[in-house]
Amino acid sequence: MKNKIYSMVLGAALLLCAACGGTSTNNAQSNSAAANGKAPKYIFYFVGDGMSQPQITMAEKAISEPGFREQFNKQTCNIYNHDGSALNLRKFPSVGLATTNAENRFITCSAAAATALATGYKTTINTISMNGDRTANLETIAEKAKKAGMKVGVVTSVSIDHATPACFYAHVEDRNMYESIGHWLLKSNFDYFGGGFTRWDKYKDMTKDQFIDSLKIKGYTVTTTRKDFDALNAQSGKVLATINKVTSTKIDGSALPYNIDLDIQQSDDDRIVLRDFVKKGIELLYNEDKGFFLFTEGGKIDWADHANDAISNIYETLALDAAIGVAMDFYRQHPDETLIVFTGDHECGGLTLGFAGTNYESAFQLMQNQVVSFETFGQEMREYIKTNPKFDALLAKLQENFGIGGDGALKLSEYETKRLKDAYLFAKGDKSVKLTDEEKHLFYGGYEPITVTTTHIIDNKAGVEWASYSHTALPVPVYSMGCGSEQLEGYFDNTDIPNTMMRLANFK
Amino acid sequence: MKNKIYSMVLGAALLLCAACGGTSTNNAQSNSAAANGKAPKYIFYFVGDGMSQPQITMAEKAISEPGFREQFNKQTCNIYNHDGSALNLRKFPSVGLATTNAENRFITCSAAAATALATGYKTTINTISMNGDRTANLETIAEKAKKAGMKVGVVTSVSIDHATPACFYAHVEDRNMYESIGHWLLKSNFDYFGGGFTRWDKYKDMTKDQFIDSLKIKGYTVTTTRKDFDALNAQSGKVLATINKVTSTKIDGSALPYNIDLDIQQSDDDRIVLRDFVKKGIELLYNEDKGFFLFTEGGKIDWADHANDAISNIYETLALDAAIGVAMDFYRQHPDETLIVFTGDHECGGLTLGFAGTNYESAFQLMQNQVVSFETFGQEMREYIKTNPKFDALLAKLQENFGIGGDGALKLSEYETKRLKDAYLFAKGDKSVKLTDEEKHLFYGGYEPITVTTTHIIDNKAGVEWASYSHTALPVPVYSMGCGSEQLEGYFDNTDIPNTMMRLANFK
Repeated sequence: MKNKIYSMVLGAALLLCAACGGTSTNNAQSNSAAANGKAPKYIFYFVGDGMSQPQITMAEKAISEPGFREQFNKQTCNIYNHDGSALNLRKFPSVGLATTNAENRFITCSAAAATALATGYKTTINTISMNGDRTANLETIAEKAKKAGMKVGVVTSVSIDHATPACFYAHVEDRNMYESIGHWLLKSNFDYFGGGFTRWDKYKDMTKDQFIDSLKIKGYTVTTTRKDFDALNAQSGKVLATINKVTSTKIDGSALPYNIDLDIQQSDDDRIVLRDFVKKGIELLYNEDKGFFLFTEGGKIDWADHANDAISNIYETLALDAAIGVAMDFYRQHPDETLIVFTGDHECGGLTLGFAGTNYESAFQLMQNQVVSFETFGQEMREYIKTNPKFDALLAKLQENFGIGGDGALKLSEYETKRLKDAYLFAKGDKSVKLTDEEKHLFYGGYEPITVTTTHIIDNKAGVEWASYSHTALPVPVYSMGCGSEQLEGYFDNTDIPNTMMRLANFK
Repeated sequence: MKNKIYSMVLGAALLLCAACGGTSTNNAQSNSAAANGKAPKYIFYFVGDGMSQPQITMAEKAISEPGFREQFNKQTCNIYNHDGSALNLRKFPSVGLATTNAENRFITCSAAAATALATGYKTTINTISMNGDRTANLETIAEKAKKAGMKVGVVTSVSIDHATPACFYAHVEDRNMYESIGHWLLKSNFDYFGGGFTRWDKYKDMTKDQFIDSLKIKGYTVTTTRKDFDALNAQSGKVLATINKVTSTKIDGSALPYNIDLDIQQSDDDRIVLRDFVKKGIELLYNEDKGFFLFTEGGKIDWADHANDAISNIYETLALDAAIGVAMDFYRQHPDETLIVFTGDHECGGLTLGFAGTNYESAFQLMQNQVVSFETFGQEMREYIKTNPKFDALLAKLQENFGIGGDGALKLSEYETKRLKDAYLFAKGDKSVKLTDEEKHLFYGGYEPITVTTTHIIDNKAGVEWASYSHTALPVPVYSMGCGSEQLEGYFDNTDIPNTMMRLANFK
């Protein structure tokens, strides 16, 4: 049955796509198109940070669970209205697999991975679109698109100077040189930046206001409210659009909030999500002359991976998928001229769709009991633990926010209760806890101990497991549709992705 | 650089493959071939049991490590002479991704997965090529090939009545009904069975000799020695070929030995490996009249996954890859008429190419210190622990067989030593050990406690982790080459694989 649905979806996608020839079964047409040098005029490039097949399949499975869709729509304030059908990215006709290693490490980082995805060259860890020894800049696909006369946009759910988006317009030795990245942004002359703001809190020589003034001098309209954002249109010129309440934690600086927290963190007036930034991007960049190139990152998938928080991860994946849906709507209107490429930069968290304790069983619906991100709950816990609460009071809080405890499917086992108690004592700084540094790292990974233990327990009960708080070397899938997408089928390296795209687009 | 190598390999494969048109970039030709109904005459179908992308990438990375190749060749008695270059399966031009769920479970089993791969239909857990409620048989691709006049062979590294190979010729309610599977084998009329023998030890009404007599009555030549095996040729008629020393443990019954144990378990005269069975299969089945269909399973990849033993897993993957190499040699001689399809039935073990304790670092070369499979070492441990050894004596044994301990890269941390001590005490049945059933299962998964703790430690130090002792739901890659292989590109369900193959081959 499921197979039938997949086949139908695939069939529909193939049909849909036939006009352009960019399908597995219509390669004859598209190859001759490629041979004729017919370049895509509208290019969408999506990257899920920390997203490989485990994250995608987890989200696909979750959304198919009874009640999941309703819960998702409720917590995201119906901003997506997901209808529960297959993910948009399931409909991509062309599939490839890409290795991700950095020049100097098997397991890559976001900077080296995004350099590969932006320039077609491997580089070293933490390097932003420079060569491995950091002596030369590497031109990016976005810069080449600009040079070719296209309008160019960069969108992300995290800060627009975070490693992944930065690799499309900046060339700096280290991803943490935020101020240098800011200067590259100012001189990029790109037409549109959308999503989180910059990490101006890390600047030394510029204030936030000075940076915004510089943007204005460069001709940018800067919006921070929903109202101003909505008012932007094709006549707005160059734009940097963000939200008025970027999250302000040390980790999340200048990012959009976690989608799972939309209902508690933002009012209707504040809410602008990744999908909106892509939609607005199309409105701002669309032109029949030279076309556009729009890069979009789902950046907090990775952060939820690092923290080992499955449901927050799923919500971020679904939010990226919704943004991809906007590009697919555009594709349907311009099937002969559009190319959409989606990939991940690396896997993160060592996510597995099975767990020793649940053997062959899965229960993804249990994740729905978690109603808040690790980040928001972790902040709360850091304050709460200072009040020296009883363990039972803590358990009540966990039941409220994660549903765990009681006598139902989320009943805590003796071992789970022990782990929570240990985390509670450790969080309290109780002297009876004797852990080596290795154990502290393995159990908590530097995260708020009670929160990460709780997400481990609920995720394990659902039948998934996390092996790491860091990235892993699992190859990433590459999904694409549109003119020339069949060139992105096969098993290749992540550098081959932009190289193929640049070749298809005839970028010099 | 690595990218360049990949590109070159891919380029070579594409070039190699161009004659047939079965490549991503030559789809124009192959599509018209498909449109013309040009069916593949020689079909190879490879399945890695318990193999998805993590297992493949782990083997790829391992073989690229300095010294790994030499160690592999040494322990496998130079039977493979791997030259250290990329895996054969890296050279497949067509790549797809397939979901694996069973009809009644997200995480499949080998029976339901192989039924999907053999018949194109989903079924329920443990069912062998019958529908989900076990009321009707589902015809298999191998049976259809036989009906179409092809010669048909089934090869595996485990027993030939194990769930995966059984699904190609048997139709029984439960995978454990070995005697029924034996009767289906007898009436299959297939031309060649190779690999492990049957699980005759599970038969109730037949002895082993009676089964062999029945095979002879059906016209089969049965060989159990290297000499008789070598003497088989195209004139031998129907053949069932196995080895004279199938492994005899409860788990491994009638399987080939683990490749990592080849040097200690078998003499030159006994050694017949998966690659040999495939090579012999081509010799026995080759005909210019109607062609052949040869199914081959690498079955112990899965078993090493279950036991969380990375290096044994890698050796099994490389052995399957070597068998695939034989098919590719054949393909080069018959590029216009050959189709090779390779996939996994499911992931197993929840293998991740990263681990919390090693963060972003990997050290796969450390795995080379392990010189024996979990199975062989586990058997030794079960006896050794009865002698009530001191913990220090045990550590010396671990250093000898796994290299762990001492002051080098495999130095044991305080936490690792504690885990080993706990496993030692638990294995001894020491009363001081107080573990809940949940903890026992999570830590040891029913395996010999010292052995599984040791493979966990060495694998973790190498930078990989296992999340489960069971299968997981990660989709599997589908690699293919040859006539029509571009039809196996995209993201689809595992049932689509045989359905596509049967369509390409015009099977009725």
